[in-house]
Amino acid sequence: ESNSNLIRATLFPGDGIGPEIAESVRQIFKVAEVPIEWEEHYVGTEIDPRTNSFLTWESLESVRRNKVGLKGPMATPIGKGHRSLNLTLRKELNLYANVRPCYSLPGYKTRYDDVNLITIRENTEGEYSGLEHQVVRGVVESLKIITRQASLRVAEYAFHYAKTHGRERVSAIHKANIMQKTDGLFLKCCREVAEKYPEIKYEEVVIDNCCMMLVKNPALFDVLVMPNLYGDIISDLCAGLIGGLGLTPSCNIGEGGIALAEAVHGSAPDIAGKNLANPTALLLSSVSMLRHLELHDKADRIQDAILKTIAEGKYRTGDLGGTATTTEFTNAICDHL
Amino acid sequence: ESNSNLIRATLFPGDGIGPEIAESVRQIFKVAEVPIEWEEHYVGTEIDPRTNSFLTWESLESVRRNKVGLKGPMATPIGKGHRSLNLTLRKELNLYANVRPCYSLPGYKTRYDDVNLITIRENTEGEYSGLEHQVVRGVVESLKIITRQASLRVAEYAFHYAKTHGRERVSAIHKANIMQKTDGLFLKCCREVAEKYPEIKYEEVVIDNCCMMLVKNPALFDVLVMPNLYGDIISDLCAGLIGGLGLTPSCNIGEGGIALAEAVHGSAPDIAGKNLANPTALLLSSVSMLRHLELHDKADRIQDAILKTIAEGKYRTGDLGGTATTTEFTNAICDHL
Ligand SMILES: CC(C)[C@H](C(=O)O)[C@@H](O)C(=O)O
Ligand SMILES: CC(C)[C@H](C(=O)O)[C@@H](O)C(=O)O
Repeated sequence: ESNSNLIRATLFPGDGIGPEIAESVRQIFKVAEVPIEWEEHYVGTEIDPRTNSFLTWESLESVRRNKVGLKGPMATPIGKGHRSLNLTLRKELNLYANVRPCYSLPGYKTRYDDVNLITIRENTEGEYSGLEHQVVRGVVESLKIITRQASLRVAEYAFHYAKTHGRERVSAIHKANIMQKTDGLFLKCCREVAEKYPEIKYEEVVIDNCCMMLVKNPALFDVLVMPNLYGDIISDLCAGLIGGLGLTPSCNIGEGGIALAEAVHGSAPDIAGKNLANPTALLLSSVSMLRHLELHDKADRIQDAILKTIAEGKYRTGDLGGTATTTEFTNAICDHL
Repeated sequence: ESNSNLIRATLFPGDGIGPEIAESVRQIFKVAEVPIEWEEHYVGTEIDPRTNSFLTWESLESVRRNKVGLKGPMATPIGKGHRSLNLTLRKELNLYANVRPCYSLPGYKTRYDDVNLITIRENTEGEYSGLEHQVVRGVVESLKIITRQASLRVAEYAFHYAKTHGRERVSAIHKANIMQKTDGLFLKCCREVAEKYPEIKYEEVVIDNCCMMLVKNPALFDVLVMPNLYGDIISDLCAGLIGGLGLTPSCNIGEGGIALAEAVHGSAPDIAGKNLANPTALLLSSVSMLRHLELHDKADRIQDAILKTIAEGKYRTGDLGGTATTTEFTNAICDHL
């Protein structure tokens, strides 16, 4: 029986440690009295011909209907002739922008303490077109596709995000000195959108130089927008600066207002089921989801509790050098709520 | 008049700060009594139709004849219809491997003090094919080309380098989970070569994960080999770890035993002619050139003098936080010879 005051959201607990960290989100949402009702979907055990993947058509329909969802790690079963689960979600739900906030966590020491940036990645085309073929034996090619439509869409998202989140600057990352037509079109679209946001500073940075600057002085950056592969690379690099993918949230934005938040780390089968997993990335992703729903009070409360728990350092999971179980860490967060 | 005991080497001083830092190399080679006679070539002021760039045919012939050269920064003049100077050199001389050692400099503090790795970049194909076109209005594509021949050649170079330089491991960097055919072929070639070098460990690392690992713990890596664009990105990232492109050497290896060492930083027109430039990258590149010529005694002596001068910290150029002129820094190195 569904409660009409509740917002329905799709939950993909995922594989490996997925169910444990999803349980952590469920518990914290309950304690924080978040008005969300989860609709759970699991990865299927057989290929669904309608998605050509182990994701069922029903689970995609659930996200389309609810327009909001949270996803744990999903390991794509090995085999041929079906699509990766992550790519299926991106394509089928047209998740065109992948948004990853990345900031230094107070009290969790890395080599960097001044990271505070957002990477916004075009998520549907570019080097991920899937178009590849052998020209002759020993000569293969891949196509990188850049379209005006997808570039404008992600650029618009990035500037709108900057404006509505009090950010000052958008940097477009590219290699247009080499790929003049593809990355050139991407930049042209960014420039067009930049003109509509005179209050936001705009700059263009070549990807190799960007990576060098990021490791030297990440505080130079604010919001970064870029084609698919550069986003894949730079978002992981940035996660590394603050401690790794176990600590960074991610949210995918799709056409029609869909938001699918996700932990982008792996499913860690080696520690699955042992109550050892760190739920932080999924928790912070759930916070991104709440912000998308404009439930800012709940989002703030939960985010504060997570950051306080990490800052105190009394309960930390093994990946952060502690000995706490997933449950102990989750309970500590609940105590801060 | 040429002295037959001397090895002739081509020198491209380049633009901007190029002539000043080239002068530093000349001075140090003289003091260290390096048996090299320079054959100087400058970037032309008009496009040479035989190279379709501002590089003259004669300058390319010089490298082909001498088989060894050193190159300062070259800014490609703006305009259409001609090729970039760097790309012209790579294509015309078939410079198939770009080798960049990257190690923490004792006494020069960055966030990292344990970097000691070599990036080896395929330098002739991949994303740099130059093949791009507009499919329809608003839809453009670039071709990434991977060939068996170029992949085997660079993999062979990497394993041979590891073996002859006392290195333990080669990591092939890729995104074959997405570009299964192109990066897949690259990996296949690396695996084939790896089998011939059972004494060298071999591993494959996905580029996004590699960047995360590099910023978290660069000591995990030894020799890295990769397609063109990944090499461009990762070599700059690594340079950033130890202080930037002003401190890292680079050497391009071509067919027929050609070696063209180069400083990969920019020509810094703002400080050109002011005796403020840091010649370290070009100096360390000249050391790479000497090692290629198997002049290891001279190479060791010069490298030691450079590192000692930087470590002492008394004479450092402005980019390293000091106030020394190019000449003062160069003289200090000579004093250590
Ligand atoms: C698993 C892989 C296909 C995926 C990607 O390359 O996009 C991952 O790295 C990510 O960033 O979500
Ligand atoms: C200047 C540019 C074309 C060049 C490249 O992309 O290869 C540079 O970044 C390099 O690494 O030598």
